[in-house]
Formats: sequence, structure tokens, C-alpha cells
Amino acid sequence: MGLLGFWNSNADKFDAAEVLQTGLYGIQHRGQQSGGICVNDKGRFIYHKELGLVSEIFDDIVIRHLRGGSAGVAHVGYLTKGEVSRENAQPIVMKYSRGQMALAFDGNLLNMQKLRASFEEKGHFFQSGSPAEIAAAMLSMERVNQHSIEDAQSKVMHEMKGAFSLLVMTPRKLMAVRDTYGVKPLCIGKLAESYVFASESCALDAIGAEFVRDVLPGEIVVASETGCASSRISIKNKSALCVFELVYFARSDSYIDGVSVFRARMDMGAALARESPAPEADIVIGAPDSAIPAALGYALASGIPYTEGLIKNRYIGRTFIQPGQTAREAAVYLKLNPQKSQVSGKSLVLVEDSIVRGTTTKRVINLLKQRGGAREVHVRVGSPMVRFPCYYGIDTRDGESLIANKMKKDEICAMLGADSLEFLSHDGLMSVTRENKCNHCTACFSGNYPISATEGSND
Amino acid sequence: MGLLGFWNSNADKFDAAEVLQTGLYGIQHRGQQSGGICVNDKGRFIYHKELGLVSEIFDDIVIRHLRGGSAGVAHVGYLTKGEVSRENAQPIVMKYSRGQMALAFDGNLLNMQKLRASFEEKGHFFQSGSPAEIAAAMLSMERVNQHSIEDAQSKVMHEMKGAFSLLVMTPRKLMAVRDTYGVKPLCIGKLAESYVFASESCALDAIGAEFVRDVLPGEIVVASETGCASSRISIKNKSALCVFELVYFARSDSYIDGVSVFRARMDMGAALARESPAPEADIVIGAPDSAIPAALGYALASGIPYTEGLIKNRYIGRTFIQPGQTAREAAVYLKLNPQKSQVSGKSLVLVEDSIVRGTTTKRVINLLKQRGGAREVHVRVGSPMVRFPCYYGIDTRDGESLIANKMKKDEICAMLGADSLEFLSHDGLMSVTRENKCNHCTACFSGNYPISATEGSND
Amino acid sequence: MGLLGFWNSNADKFDAAEVLQTGLYGIQHRGQQSGGICVNDKGRFIYHKELGLVSEIFDDIVIRHLRGGSAGVAHVGYLTKGEVSRENAQPIVMKYSRGQMALAFDGNLLNMQKLRASFEEKGHFFQSGSPAEIAAAMLSMERVNQHSIEDAQSKVMHEMKGAFSLLVMTPRKLMAVRDTYGVKPLCIGKLAESYVFASESCALDAIGAEFVRDVLPGEIVVASETGCASSRISIKNKSALCVFELVYFARSDSYIDGVSVFRARMDMGAALARESPAPEADIVIGAPDSAIPAALGYALASGIPYTEGLIKNRYIGRTFIQPGQTAREAAVYLKLNPQKSQVSGKSLVLVEDSIVRGTTTKRVINLLKQRGGAREVHVRVGSPMVRFPCYYGIDTRDGESLIANKMKKDEICAMLGADSLEFLSHDGLMSVTRENKCNHCTACFSGNYPISATEGSND
Amino acid sequence: MGLLGFWNSNADKFDAAEVLQTGLYGIQHRGQQSGGICVNDKGRFIYHKELGLVSEIFDDIVIRHLRGGSAGVAHVGYLTKGEVSRENAQPIVMKYSRGQMALAFDGNLLNMQKLRASFEEKGHFFQSGSPAEIAAAMLSMERVNQHSIEDAQSKVMHEMKGAFSLLVMTPRKLMAVRDTYGVKPLCIGKLAESYVFASESCALDAIGAEFVRDVLPGEIVVASETGCASSRISIKNKSALCVFELVYFARSDSYIDGVSVFRARMDMGAALARESPAPEADIVIGAPDSAIPAALGYALASGIPYTEGLIKNRYIGRTFIQPGQTAREAAVYLKLNPQKSQVSGKSLVLVEDSIVRGTTTKRVINLLKQRGGAREVHVRVGSPMVRFPCYYGIDTRDGESLIANKMKKDEICAMLGADSLEFLSHDGLMSVTRENKCNHCTACFSGNYPISATEGSND
Repeated sequence: MGLLGFWNSNADKFDAAEVLQTGLYGIQHRGQQSGGICVNDKGRFIYHKELGLVSEIFDDIVIRHLRGGSAGVAHVGYLTKGEVSRENAQPIVMKYSRGQMALAFDGNLLNMQKLRASFEEKGHFFQSGSPAEIAAAMLSMERVNQHSIEDAQSKVMHEMKGAFSLLVMTPRKLMAVRDTYGVKPLCIGKLAESYVFASESCALDAIGAEFVRDVLPGEIVVASETGCASSRISIKNKSALCVFELVYFARSDSYIDGVSVFRARMDMGAALARESPAPEADIVIGAPDSAIPAALGYALASGIPYTEGLIKNRYIGRTFIQPGQTAREAAVYLKLNPQKSQVSGKSLVLVEDSIVRGTTTKRVINLLKQRGGAREVHVRVGSPMVRFPCYYGIDTRDGESLIANKMKKDEICAMLGADSLEFLSHDGLMSVTRENKCNHCTACFSGNYPISATEGSND
Repeated sequence: MGLLGFWNSNADKFDAAEVLQTGLYGIQHRGQQSGGICVNDKGRFIYHKELGLVSEIFDDIVIRHLRGGSAGVAHVGYLTKGEVSRENAQPIVMKYSRGQMALAFDGNLLNMQKLRASFEEKGHFFQSGSPAEIAAAMLSMERVNQHSIEDAQSKVMHEMKGAFSLLVMTPRKLMAVRDTYGVKPLCIGKLAESYVFASESCALDAIGAEFVRDVLPGEIVVASETGCASSRISIKNKSALCVFELVYFARSDSYIDGVSVFRARMDMGAALARESPAPEADIVIGAPDSAIPAALGYALASGIPYTEGLIKNRYIGRTFIQPGQTAREAAVYLKLNPQKSQVSGKSLVLVEDSIVRGTTTKRVINLLKQRGGAREVHVRVGSPMVRFPCYYGIDTRDGESLIANKMKKDEICAMLGADSLEFLSHDGLMSVTRENKCNHCTACFSGNYPISATEGSND
Repeated sequence: MGLLGFWNSNADKFDAAEVLQTGLYGIQHRGQQSGGICVNDKGRFIYHKELGLVSEIFDDIVIRHLRGGSAGVAHVGYLTKGEVSRENAQPIVMKYSRGQMALAFDGNLLNMQKLRASFEEKGHFFQSGSPAEIAAAMLSMERVNQHSIEDAQSKVMHEMKGAFSLLVMTPRKLMAVRDTYGVKPLCIGKLAESYVFASESCALDAIGAEFVRDVLPGEIVVASETGCASSRISIKNKSALCVFELVYFARSDSYIDGVSVFRARMDMGAALARESPAPEADIVIGAPDSAIPAALGYALASGIPYTEGLIKNRYIGRTFIQPGQTAREAAVYLKLNPQKSQVSGKSLVLVEDSIVRGTTTKRVINLLKQRGGAREVHVRVGSPMVRFPCYYGIDTRDGESLIANKMKKDEICAMLGADSLEFLSHDGLMSVTRENKCNHCTACFSGNYPISATEGSND
Repeated sequence: MGLLGFWNSNADKFDAAEVLQTGLYGIQHRGQQSGGICVNDKGRFIYHKELGLVSEIFDDIVIRHLRGGSAGVAHVGYLTKGEVSRENAQPIVMKYSRGQMALAFDGNLLNMQKLRASFEEKGHFFQSGSPAEIAAAMLSMERVNQHSIEDAQSKVMHEMKGAFSLLVMTPRKLMAVRDTYGVKPLCIGKLAESYVFASESCALDAIGAEFVRDVLPGEIVVASETGCASSRISIKNKSALCVFELVYFARSDSYIDGVSVFRARMDMGAALARESPAPEADIVIGAPDSAIPAALGYALASGIPYTEGLIKNRYIGRTFIQPGQTAREAAVYLKLNPQKSQVSGKSLVLVEDSIVRGTTTKRVINLLKQRGGAREVHVRVGSPMVRFPCYYGIDTRDGESLIANKMKKDEICAMLGADSLEFLSHDGLMSVTRENKCNHCTACFSGNYPISATEGSND
């Protein structure tokens, strides 16, 4: 999911709703099922949230309705099948002991069921029951005893076990929070004298803001009339940014915790080329869009020429984060077409960023061979096998849907219809990220979960 | 506002969503700004609520989505200006300690601010902060300690100080509740073996259900697999149905607490004719639609012929309950046209059901004289002056907007541009309702509030 | 169907699109399936037409798009089942030898098939093939040889065999035409210095315009910068306004050819009471809305008290002119409810304006007896039996669907479930219209078609 | 614009509307302002056309309405500013002397004004006045004298002076026509036993159809129950496919007249590298999406590494063919972002497919330098300067908007803010297309118009 916050210190130049609407296009790739904006219009919170794409949700009429805000929070979300309902759209806007609050959340709380049960036992009720609403309840509850929203957040920080980034708007503040491991990204930008918080730096680019820095793991940053202040809750030995952000999730022009996503993907491709060359191949191609940088890296390192082997229809949506398996499957054939002039009769390296369920890759190979006339397809994957479920908010919570848990590598290769199949080694991946001086959560590849899930998993 | 509930014991014949959709047309007059339906599909609560008219909110796609329910609750609402937001649409659907609950509410809680503050002090938060959400919080809180939803309702009944009717759906029950004074209407119907709860009997007619009886003041009725059971919380010496339901709010073909609304309005008109004849008049007309029965009663009792003096454009909405003063004003001229052939050159009695702010009546008189060529317009009002604000959920909470608090009768008459103006006396009104063996809340006319507002008023 | 035209001589005060939008609400009863507005913005014709109600078609965005016009034509239409397609929406906007033209049409051309065939034989094509498009083709063809649009209309007038009213906008004129028999209504109004043309005077009221006079049969009226000029094509011995306009179609507050529709209906009711009394009856009621005036007339003449026996749901559409039989049937039960307090146990006169197929009346009687508890229902119809199909644009072109062609009066009475049934005699109807000094087309009652259909009928 | 036709010989397997809807996604790049489908349901033509994208226009409800067709034609269009109106959506569906006809058109008629005037002089009128409607009128007119639609087309072929492809559906046939020079593309595919006609082969891929062959210049192909038959009207010495299809307009995975668009673009890039090397550059990038193949070709031929230098936001539309200059300008900044990790500090070759007005390229260079930190940007354009207006249906009819007509190359370079600027020579372009054994219209580059415009130009 994607978060965006704006603290407007340039009321003469900018309008919060317009800035947020524009910026949401820049993080739309992080969630395409829901979107919302809440602005603070002189203490009155006005908001609009809906299912759909940013371009569908926010038209002139809606933006006019939201105009005039001195601050705002916005969100784009993806929803798993059972969650497709307007109530799961964010931000959550609420009235509580200290007035109003609007909250946008990316990630998951591991102890969510336990937390929710403890609230319900006290008589509370929830409308969506989402992690965002649980977080809202925790803050609302704690705030009764705390002077400020940042104090309340400090107090609940350790009970919010999980991986998350969080934006909270109160009548006089805009707070940005990153979990103590920094699993989910969040960064700070500046637009003239105004502050911006965004899940990825590419959203700052979309609105023309300058990148200032990433929010640190465990840091609480607060923008208010007196400027931007920070406190850091806890200092871990190492942070644990989700490596899947680099592999697939983030947009390639973003920088996260100092790392260029594009550069990281190129490096993964290069490392892969060194580990698993494909001397027999004529050309290197990538599955658009996320595997292109790794393919370029592979081509550069291997000396095999890169070309475009597949064209993506620009008028349909994105694969991975559509709700439900069926919708995912139906759209593939219309979405991708092989560049026959490039692949026909060729032996080619198909670089993939990752293989989770294998269904997309299987269809791509089939396309390349049946429709494209490719002679051989050697699949090279820019990341290790995804073997472990993610409890931190990526939609791979069900370990059984992971192809790597059902088959061995050569079985997968056969199932895919590939002529060879290689994954980047964990060491290879580590060498790339280490070079980038950044520690990562690689739980989906390694099973090493930085945040313990023993408190109970979240179904 | 209007409530509707359906307990489907005839799954072979009926579909809850379709029955509720149809029935909502029958109570649309009780609220035109929002609507919603929640159904219980084998324990899963599916719902849709939105701003707008029933015909705008529920199309084939939505109803298909809601199909399959074994029970359901529905709501139509009117929203004052500041409330026009989707979050104020009902029913409220929530997850709490005992699973799911859907709640629809008509009325107001006098101690709402106090209740809300007490919840917020405990850390709770609210999304709309409406009386419906407060009621939901009370039930959610109490339910922790109570075995059944009806036990929980019994416990909180006396803390829910106010005038309300309430429908609550849980996974296995459908509960209907009326406040201890019975200020707001609620009745029980039967459709084959299935149970229906509705704010007014005309909604039962709309779906072809038979009227069984009214829910009694303070009664809790529960439909479940084992049938329909009732418990009565408190027995007051006298009930206090809102007399404004008879005067204006209810649809004239409804029966409330044994009284035909149409008959009551005719009787008011007849009593008015006896109290305040208009011997000089040629014809009697009524302001459509709600004053027609009183006009017929006036004509019959006075012997002056009744005719239609005004035609209402059927393609635009209703006056009183549009949000905000401006919208109310703009629509009048397009909405009503005098029947020139009937009123031109005539001296006429214009029967009104009530005068609250006087703005509509003023325009009607102007229409009749300027456009219609009426020689004289003698206004006769089928109810006393509205002098006291209503705290029980009618949109006259602001005493200062009441014309009767700003001017004397002759000043009002002059302001309206009428040739004479008479109101039904309080005794006259009482004689009508007494005859109907029913006690009423007449606070807006008399200032006698059956339910004390001393605990704090609701801004 | 309904026509509206506006020639704006007060650009400082009015906007053509806004005036037309408002006025369309006033003729919405003449057609609820389609609507359209075309304005002349300094020679550029801008338009919007769509299926649906005026309130659905024209929102702020559309009206803003249409703003700035110095003249405009508008239309509301009803479409028979096979015609429900956007291409049948009017006005027709076209480019031809003299620039642009927008045309709105109410009625039918008897020789349409012949005309269309003759055009097609010359290689022309049509997009809807409607009478409006045929009329457009005739004008377009003739205009090649004629200096002015009114000259072209004069020339084709006698070839346009049929019953119609017509509005044509050219870059510098607005022309209003009524067929030589004046079967379809059309009147002229003035709003400040601006001219309005409308199918019915009630549309003038809706926009606050003054009624000037009716367009005469065969008259061509042209508004332009130099004012409003008229020429009359042919003088018939007698005009032939469709009597069904008075009986049912027109809104009761309209005046057509000097006759108050309301007064005419009252007179029909009174004549009916004299011809067919019902001494046994307790009360008189009318089927809302169109039969109310006749019921009032019947009550007055008979001395039997009038009351409201049925209430119509204001949130659903109108019966007669919905497309297709099925939609007509389904909506009846939800739409009407008996006033049980008025009809229960009573013997009542149910006044109907007309009986065409009998289906609606049958259901109304069933409602009154089964649901309302009426003891006896004596049906009195304010017009003769509809025995002959209408070729002039009313949706009764199929003689076989007319109940009067399938059964005798007592069979109809039995089929309806009525206790007695009487129709106004043709003489009775004539006496009413004669009194109003107006000749009428009564073909549907009498079979006397003023305009010959021998040239070929219109399937 | 894009055309699609389907003749369904496999009613058990396919539905015409569904096939056409899918296929339209494959030609959406040829027109994003309007779309339409008309199907032949047992002789009844049902259609839907609207402004917007395919995904906006065709939802489940619309497709259900269109279901059941045994044949169909579909269209996507782009509309210049003054044309944005539903009436300009295609196909044109009409009734004429031989029943019904639906027509979809891509291109322009040079003698359109003269043709339209000649029709209007005979009294015809037009609703849009577009080339498509003129073509429809020509066929309608000619068909009066001709036995078959293909005979009529043969007769009018030489009067249809211009560049066009055309699909015409009659009750029993589906006809595909390409102008005598073959300026506009059109190809034939087969899906099981069914026939498909499409503007580009990539639309065949989208629906899984096999490419059969291109329609030949001047060829008329007719699908009917008896199969697929062809007649060729005229044999020119050389065909003249619009070279801009290869340069920019077509999708890179299409094959047109035997040429792979991707391969042609790569070859242009390679020729450009040979003509205008950039030895100083570190990397080669292309402006997405259309210049990527040329950039790959340039990189390969020059030995300078290719990378992605710009990322395109996938949630917004396409530049060139948006209506109006303003909309074009506003969207650029949000749409493209530099890949800072790739371009920062680098000297780069930016390959463009073409430069028409220069506004987009200027902004891209600014982006790369200001935001991306590129040190130098050397622009290399894969086609010659666009110096001559296109009268054949590409939106460059106004010669004055062409940057190459306002400035010299070095002035353009300065205006763009580029460090150097080179265009592919006309000879270079010719060498590429010659190699592909295909003659082209290069009028926009060379001023050599294969089809004379002397008959009068089309404003």
C-alpha cells in the first residue's frame, strides 16, 4: 500500500488536496484497489475514499470538495479478495477524545487478532477490523493518557508488533512513523516550505518535491506549525527493509534507505549473470515492467544483447496485486504480446524479478514459444526462491500457494516449460544489498523473520 | 428517518435484499439523503450504503451483490447540512466481541454528548459520532457482559435517554426496539412466514406484508429461527408518539399506534374548520401532498368545496427535509404551480399542515396570488404554532429558526402575505388525538417534553 | 413528446441552456425516456442528448458545457420498446447546405414510410429513421431551393402529412410550426424580451414566462433578431386538437387552445355524473394524478363527497408511457396504495380519465377491494371507449391492444372486477369541448380521422 | 484510428461483441477519445459508441446488451479539439435503401469538402460531417444502382480520393477496403473458421487470431456465409504505406505490409547511429514507449550501452493524440520521471522517434538535466524533420505548428536545450524501408504527396 502526507506551509502556492491527488499517481503501483484523501480544513476534516484507481476516484468535483486544506493524508490500497469493500479504504477518519484523527497505514500487525480481541473484550467495536483500524484504536486508547499524539505513538510503538509505516493527521499535526525495523519504506520531502511524507521517493518526484531523507526505523516525525521535529524510539543493531521492495514492489526510479531501486535490480541481474550464465543465448529480455532493470544488468554483465521481447498493453492494469487468482489469470494474454521480430527462432534469456506462484512466468514462456516462436527460453530469476510466507503485509501469507514449496527447481522448470531455470542465490542477493550498505528483511527467501510471529499469526 | 428489517423464513419465495429494496420505496419519504441495506448471508454481513435516493443507490448490480440473505436491515436517512457524508449513512455494520452486528436507528439520544464523551474517555473512537454509532457502542459495550443481544438492550435501555426506534441484526437474530415513550413509530408485519419490521405500515403495504401490530413503547421484539418473541422493559402511564408524525411526517396511508394518519389529518382539518371558519371563501385547497387530507376535512366540515389549487411537479424532490435552507428555497418555484382555472379571482382557504419557518407557505401564497390570480388567501393551519425546538430527532433543534418565536400571529400573517391566518388550537389538536385514544408528544407545540433534556442537550 | 425553444434577447439576464433545463421539468410528463438540449453559441451548435429523465441527463457539468447560447431547442421523448436507443433522442442536429440546423419534433407523419423510401431511393440514409429525421430530410432537401427556412417549411407543409409540432433552430432563427390541423399543441410565451415556444403552457410557468398565445394550426412562427414574425399556411374549416391531450396527456394546469385542461377534465367528470350517476356510492375518488380533476367534477355534480382513495408513491415513474408492457405491469403495486381509512367498507365511485388496455384499472380495483377493503367499486370513465388506433403519435397504434376492441362493456366490467362501469358518451365529451369552443380530433373514440391515412400507415 | 471487424463462423465458440471488445484493447493506441461496437444480431444492428477509453465504454452491461451477434465492426478514434463529441464516434450505423449498414473508417478524404457540398446541394444532411459519414453517403448513394455492396464500393473507389481503410457491415456481409495506395494499414486474420479484419496485426494477437495477410492497396475483401472473397480495384506501380505508422503510430509488435514495426524502428536507430554517432556519450536511452526500439538499434550499432533513462507512469494516458495543446502540456511532468541512478552525471544519447512540435522533447530534456542530473543530452531522431503537413488523417494538418517550419536545426537544438541534435536523413530512412521491400508515403518528410490534394484541401 502507499502513503502520502502533506503539511502545507505555502497556502498561497499549494492546495493540499491537489498536491496529494497528483502524488497518489506516483504511488498508485503500491495499491490499485482503493484510494482516499483526507484534508484538514481549519480543524474540519473533509475526506473522500473509494474503491478504484486514483484516476477513477478523484475527479474535479471531488477535488473541489476537498479544496482548502492546510494539511492532508492520502492512501492507495490493495485488497485481498475478501476485503474488497469501501470500508477497507483508507485513511481512517475518526472522532476521539482529542477531537479528530485521520490515519493511513501500510503493513501488518502480527499481534492483530490478539489486540482486536482485547479491545473487543472491553466493548469496542470495529467497522473493518483492518490493521489500520487496530492501530487507530491503540492510538485513541493511549491518547487518553498522553499529552501529545507523538507521546501516544511512543507508548504504543512496542505493542504495534509488525511491519508498518503510518501517517496520522490531527487538527494541528501531521505525524509519520516507521516501524522499529524499518520494514516498510517511508521518506520525507520538501516542497518549498511545505513537508511531504511518502512511501516512495518517486511520489516526491511526481509533485516536484525534493527528497530530504528516509524516516528512520522506529522514528516518529511530526510536522506542525513550528516545523518538523523527530524522536527516535528504539535503535536496533540493524534495520530490515523488506527486500521485496527492491526486488519487485517499489517503482524502479525510487530510492529507499539510500538505495536506488533501479541500480539494485541491475546489480541483481549482473550478479545473476555471473552466477548463472547462459552462453547459448542470443538475447536477453525482461518481463515488463519490474524485471527490465535486472534484464539490463544481466545483459551488461553477460555481454548478450538486451532487447524488448514482450510488449505490455498499457490500457489494462497490473498483475500481481489484482484481487484473487482468477482475475490474475484472465488478464495475462491480453496484457502481454511477444515481439516476434526479436524472439522468433532465438534462444533467449528471460529475466524475471521473482517467482512466487509461477503462473505468470509459465504463461509468459508459453507466449514466447507458441506465439513468439522462441527456440529456447532460459529463465533467470533476479532473486532466490520465495519459500516462506510473508506476515508483514505482502500478499503471500499463504505458504502453500508458493510454487517453491510444492516443487523442486527442476520440477518448476519443467512445469514452466523453460529450457533452464536459475535463481539468484541468497548470497548473491546479499552481496548486492550489502554493497548498498543496507540490511534487509529476507524472510520470504530465508525464513529469518526479524520480527517474531510467535504472538500469533494473522489469518 | 426510516427503518426496515426482514427475517426471511421463506427462502424459497423471497430474497431479503429485494424485499428490503422494495420496502424502502415505501419509507423513502422519511429520509431522502441516504440509504443502505445490510443482509446476513449465512453469517457473512454484506452491505451497501450511500448518499442519495433509493432509486439511485440500489440498481441491479448492487442488489445482485446483496442477494442471498436470510435476514436484513435497511435504512433511509435525512442529513442536516453538516452531516451530508457517506459515513452518516446507515445501517452501521460492525465487528465486536460477539461477531458482527448491523444497526439502523431513527431518532435522537438526549444524553449523546455525555455518552460519547464517556466512551472517548475510555479510548473509544467514532467514525460518524451519530446517535446510531453511540447506540452501537452502548450495545457493543454491554454485550460483553450479557448472554444475548436482547439482554444487552434491556440493560442499556434506560441509559439510551431519548426518542428512538432501533433495528439490530446479529448473525442469528433480528431485534426491533422502541423507546420507552414510543416517540418514534415502529411496527411489525408478516409476509408469509417471514417477519418484517418497519417505521410505518405503508412500507408493509409496499411489499405486500400484513400488518400485525405496533411495537409497544419500551418493547424489545426479537425474530429468530424459533419465531418472534417479545419482552417489555417498562410500562409508562402514557405513551408519547410524536404528534408531528400525524401532522406531517408520516405518509397519510400509514396507521401508527392504531391511528389512521389520513383520518387524523382530516379530523384536524375538520376541527380547524369548526374553530376557524372562513365563510367568505369560495374554495378550499391544500398544500400538496401532506396538507391534502386536512384540506378535505376542512372542506367537508365547512361545506366549502374542495379542489386542487396547486400542482406539484412529480420530477423533483420534497421540501422540508432537503439539507440546508438554500436548497429548500431554490426548488419551490419549479415545484409548484397554481391551478389558475381553479383559483383565479377566487377567495380561497389554503390549508397547511403546519408552519415551521414560514418560508414555503409565503411562497405558496405569493404563487397563488401573483401567478394564480387568487383574490384572497385565508391560511388555515391544521396544527398549533410550532414554538419549541424538538430534541427528539426532527430537524427543528434550533428554536430561533421557528417563525412563531420571532413574530406574533398577525405579524406572521402579514409576512406571509395572507388575508387571514389561523392555527388549530392545542385543545383542538388534543381532541383529535384523544378521540383516537392515543397519547402524544406535543412538545413542539406545548413545550411539555416527556423525556427530560436536563442531562444535557445535543448540539 | 415535449418541445421547448428559447430565443434569448436578454443575454444579460438569461442563459438559454439554464432556461431550457428548467422548462424541461415542466414538460417532463410528455416524455420520460429521452431528453436533449441544443444551443446556438454564436453560430456554433452545442448539444447534449441522452436516454433518461431530465434530472438524470442534465447535471452541472453538462449545463456548463452548454452555457452561453443565444437560442436553443430542447426535447423530451418517450420511446416505444424497439426505439430505446440514444439515436432516437432529439433534437436532431445536422449540417446541411445552409450550415447547421437543430430540430425537435412531437407527433407522427402518416406518409413516413413513403417519404423515407423516396429519400432512400435517391441514396439518402438515416440514422434513426424517426419522423423527426424524415422531417429534417424534407427541410434539408427543400432548403436547397428556398431562401429561408420558413419558405422551405411552407413548401413542405402539405407533404408533411400528419400530426406534429416542430421546432427548428438555424444559426439565425428559431422556427415553431404546428401542423395544419393543430393536432399537437404548441404555444408562445415571453420572458422579458425573449421568446419561448413550448408544447404546453405549464412549461412557460416553470420558467416564469408569460403566455402569449397558441401557435395556430398551420402557422409558422419565426423568432429572430428582428423579433417574432408569423405566416399561416392554410386555413382549415376546423382545427383538430387531439382530445386525448385534454383527457390524459397534458398536465392539468396547462391551457391549450384557450381551454384549461383542469376545467375540461372537471367538466368531463360533471357530464359523466349527469349521464351515469352512482347514487349508491359513499365517496368519489380518482386514479392519481390525471383523473383527479374529473373525480372532483364528478363529486361536485353528483353531491357525493370527494376524497383521496389512493396514494401514489412519489419516488417512482409514470405508468402509461413506460416502454413495454412488462415494465408497466411490474410497477403498479409499489406505486399505488389504497387509503384504507377512506375506502374500507365503502361503496365508491372510481373515476378514471380513460381506459386503453384496462390493465392499470384492473389492478387499481383489485387494490381497492383486496387491500383497501372497498365494498363496491363503480368505475366511471371521463371519456368514451378507446376503440380506434391513433396514427398521430400516441402510443396506441396497435388497435388490437385496445380492450374495447376485444370485449363488450359488461365483459370489460367483469374483467376489471368492477361493480359497474360507465363511459362518458361521445356526445357528452363533445358537449364539454364544444362549450370550450374548440374542435378536436376524437379519432380514437370515433374513428373519424381528420387526416387521411390512406397514403400508407406507419408500422 | 483503429478498425476491427469480425465475421463469426463459430457461433458455438465465440461471441462477436466479446471478441471485438478484447481486440479493441489491441488497437487502443490508435485512438483514445472514442470507441464503438456494432453487431449484427440476426439482421438487427445493435450498437454502442461513446467518448472515452475502451475500458470506460464497454462494461458488462453494455457487452451483455451487444451479445449474440454473428458479425460486427468496431472502432477506436482520436478526435481533434473541435471534434470531441459523441456524434463523431464510430461506427456509423444507418438505414438506407438496402436496409442497414455500419461503417468504420480510418483516414481522410482529400476531396471531402467538395463531396459534402455536392451532397448538400442535393439536399442531403450530415450529423457529424466526418470523412466516415461522407463515405457512408457515397456508398448509400451508389448502392441504389448496384447489386452488391462490393460493386458499390468498386464504383466509388476512385471518387474516394484519400488515404483510408474502411470496414462496412451489411446484414449479410462484412467488407474490408483499403485505399488504392494502401496508405492506411489493414490486415486479415483468422480465428478458427471466423474472419477478422484489423488495422494492425497486434489486434489479431490480442484475440488469439492468426495473421493471414494484409489487405492489398485498392483491394475489397468480403466475408460472408460463403467464405472470404476478394477483388482488386487498381494496381498502382507502387504502394504508399504511411511511413509514420512505422516511425510512431503503430504498435511495435505489429507487422504491416510484411514489415516488423519493431525491426524497422531498430533499423532506423542503427542507420541513425551510423549517420550521426555520438562518441562522447556514456549511455543510450529512448523516450518511452515508441522510441525504445530505435534506441536499442542505436545502442547496438554504436556500441554505447542501452539503459532505461525515463520511467513512464502507467496510470495516465498517451501524449501525442490527446485532444488540444493544453491537455498535452499539463500531463508531461506527472507522466515521466528520469531514472536518476542511470542518467545522473552522464552524457547521454536520447533517441526520439520523431519531432513534430518539439514540446514533448523539450520537456524530456529539461527533466533529464534538471531532475535527472544528466550532464549532456544528445538528441538523435529516428526520422527526418517533419516539414510538411499530412492531409491523410494524421493530426498534423496545420503546417505552421511544425517546429521544422519555424526554425533551423541548430535553433531547434537550442530551443530544446539539447547538446546536439541530429535527424535521420531521408536517404537513411529510405534505406531502411527499401530493405524492407516496401514503398511508403513520406510526404511529411519529403513533401512528395502520392495522392494529389489539388481537388481541394480539408480544413
